[in-house]
Amino acid sequence: MSVTAARGFTAAGVTAGIKASGRPDLALVVNEGPDAHAAGVFTSNKFTAAPVQWSRDAVRNGRLAAVVLNSGGANACTGSAGLADAQKMAEWTGAEVGCAAGDVAVCSTGLIGVRLPMDPVLTGIQLAAQDLAHTGGPSAAEAIRTTDTVAKEAVHTSPDGWTIGGMAKGAGMLAPALATMLVVVTTDAVVPPAELDAALRTATGFTFDRTDSDGCMSTNDTVLLLSSGASGVAPDPAEFSEALTAVCADLARQLLADAEGSAHDIEVRVEGAVTEADALAVARAIARSNLFKCAIFGNDPNWGRVLASAGTVQADYDPEHVDVAFNGVRVFVDGQLGADRSEVSLAAREVLVEVHLHAGDASAAIWTNDLTYDYVKENAEYST
Amino acid sequence: MSVTAARGFTAAGVTAGIKASGRPDLALVVNEGPDAHAAGVFTSNKFTAAPVQWSRDAVRNGRLAAVVLNSGGANACTGSAGLADAQKMAEWTGAEVGCAAGDVAVCSTGLIGVRLPMDPVLTGIQLAAQDLAHTGGPSAAEAIRTTDTVAKEAVHTSPDGWTIGGMAKGAGMLAPALATMLVVVTTDAVVPPAELDAALRTATGFTFDRTDSDGCMSTNDTVLLLSSGASGVAPDPAEFSEALTAVCADLARQLLADAEGSAHDIEVRVEGAVTEADALAVARAIARSNLFKCAIFGNDPNWGRVLASAGTVQADYDPEHVDVAFNGVRVFVDGQLGADRSEVSLAAREVLVEVHLHAGDASAAIWTNDLTYDYVKENAEYST
Repeated sequence: MSVTAARGFTAAGVTAGIKASGRPDLALVVNEGPDAHAAGVFTSNKFTAAPVQWSRDAVRNGRLAAVVLNSGGANACTGSAGLADAQKMAEWTGAEVGCAAGDVAVCSTGLIGVRLPMDPVLTGIQLAAQDLAHTGGPSAAEAIRTTDTVAKEAVHTSPDGWTIGGMAKGAGMLAPALATMLVVVTTDAVVPPAELDAALRTATGFTFDRTDSDGCMSTNDTVLLLSSGASGVAPDPAEFSEALTAVCADLARQLLADAEGSAHDIEVRVEGAVTEADALAVARAIARSNLFKCAIFGNDPNWGRVLASAGTVQADYDPEHVDVAFNGVRVFVDGQLGADRSEVSLAAREVLVEVHLHAGDASAAIWTNDLTYDYVKENAEYST
Repeated sequence: MSVTAARGFTAAGVTAGIKASGRPDLALVVNEGPDAHAAGVFTSNKFTAAPVQWSRDAVRNGRLAAVVLNSGGANACTGSAGLADAQKMAEWTGAEVGCAAGDVAVCSTGLIGVRLPMDPVLTGIQLAAQDLAHTGGPSAAEAIRTTDTVAKEAVHTSPDGWTIGGMAKGAGMLAPALATMLVVVTTDAVVPPAELDAALRTATGFTFDRTDSDGCMSTNDTVLLLSSGASGVAPDPAEFSEALTAVCADLARQLLADAEGSAHDIEVRVEGAVTEADALAVARAIARSNLFKCAIFGNDPNWGRVLASAGTVQADYDPEHVDVAFNGVRVFVDGQLGADRSEVSLAAREVLVEVHLHAGDASAAIWTNDLTYDYVKENAEYST
């Protein structure tokens, strides 16, 4: 049920005609209240897409009444004309659902550098507004797909009577051929905007920010959290934050599992670092090594490439006391050759790479994918 | 003639039996003097290979009498046993050519994490010492090849009577399936060690350091410069530095042209930056974007991916006033859509991507390759 699992939300997904394929391409999510609290996290790319610029302003006051999303075009690097298009999408949506344009967030996904066809967009907003339903979550999740092979949804229901539900597409920092990760999460818990914001930053920091399929940051990445308060229940902040992180982690895993052309999901876990930042930096360097990612595609536990990548980070540890394990088999122990690589099997989709720095107590993980023929194919052929 | 183009040097390349393929795998370069001046630049990877640790110490006093190089094994991440192996290579070479072990640099290339077979290495050093000749440069350049499809050599001859010649293999920061870029440059110019060192750092800073095929830094990268002084001519330092940079640039281009699986050589040139560091950071971010590199493989002038990569760098410029050109066609002008991408042809191997930040007067370029099926294939299958 994704974004309509929580009470107080309607949604719809329709075929507006933005995509040439005739597949669904426009979605609406509307918050019926009583609250219209919201928080958002956006790409840190300097080239922020027009809808991101609009939405970042819209959510600044902690209020959102609706979100309009389209696939089939990212409306990024489209200059002032693109910004006017994003504003029109907010105004048309506000007019249809009865709220101020400034309370509407806009999300777009698709090719960078192409103007949106505004006639189909307007038609789509009108169609979607007519279709809004308390069961519309799955349709909305469908309509934001681009190269996604499946829609991504996650729901957490608290025994205390509140719910968090979300949808995602992506892409994103995962495999952004379409240069976009979009996530909308809704809740009927009673949560003030500042607490929503804190919970969302914590959740994305531990989930989407640590999911790095190809090291490429999008111009359109957006994660929105809306609360209706319709459950009437104000949850314990820690409990709410934990539940939100779980929903985001669930969506992040679904994104990774569907990343373009990937054959393996890889967890790179770094332990024994002096600081969490060191652990993250080492894990990210490994996760971004094309040589490492090609090796995993070839089912090759090439720990030399793990170390060569780790060594590019000037973190505080002694390279002569490092361990590396693939799926639990320690192939490099205390800076010396360990178990033979033939003892490692990488046949399964899930791969765990553990690096122990033996320098401190901090740890962190990055989730990534392998680098495959199909990744190259999809991303060499996408826009031509 | 590579390393024997300059007077005062002998070299040899032989088949020692380190490689299973039976191809040449061991080389010697010997400086006959009168000077034995030298300088070296090495990988900044924390996991420095044993031969790098040895050679860095050996060249510290500005003296080298010989270099022994092997392909077929990188002797990296091999612990204390590997360091002892590198030392033995220097000792054996010193005994054969009649110099102190401390005046012998050692370079190894091949798979990380595998001990070298020391019996063939010893045999190879003895064979090569017998083969040393003033015409041995090409044989030495042959023997350091791994996945290189051709040997790389470059020579500069000054009308003033001195010469610089070099050989390279790689790989390196280019496409290090074998995790190594090795370069040996010799000269018969009379140049004191401190000036050699300064000239070498300038040359590598402008050439190899700006060649970035796949963003992967090796554990074995080594660039050595030896001078015999045999010409008796002490060149103008600026002229020598310029000539050395030209030889290194020539070798760097040859490395890039032969990078594993590549279909395009790409120059990413960033102009109008506030500082050269900003220009380099933006150029490097673009050159490391897998999405951009896949697009070039697909002959797709996808400037959206150029901007998305540029935008990940927090350099000082206004994204609303940026230009992007592919092979001279300005597809994005002053933050707005420019010429249609259909006007760009990427059929040729050489591709020039220009980004103008309109923020200052600094500029810099990075040379890279595209990301292809063959890159994935070579690097997925290499060690299995």
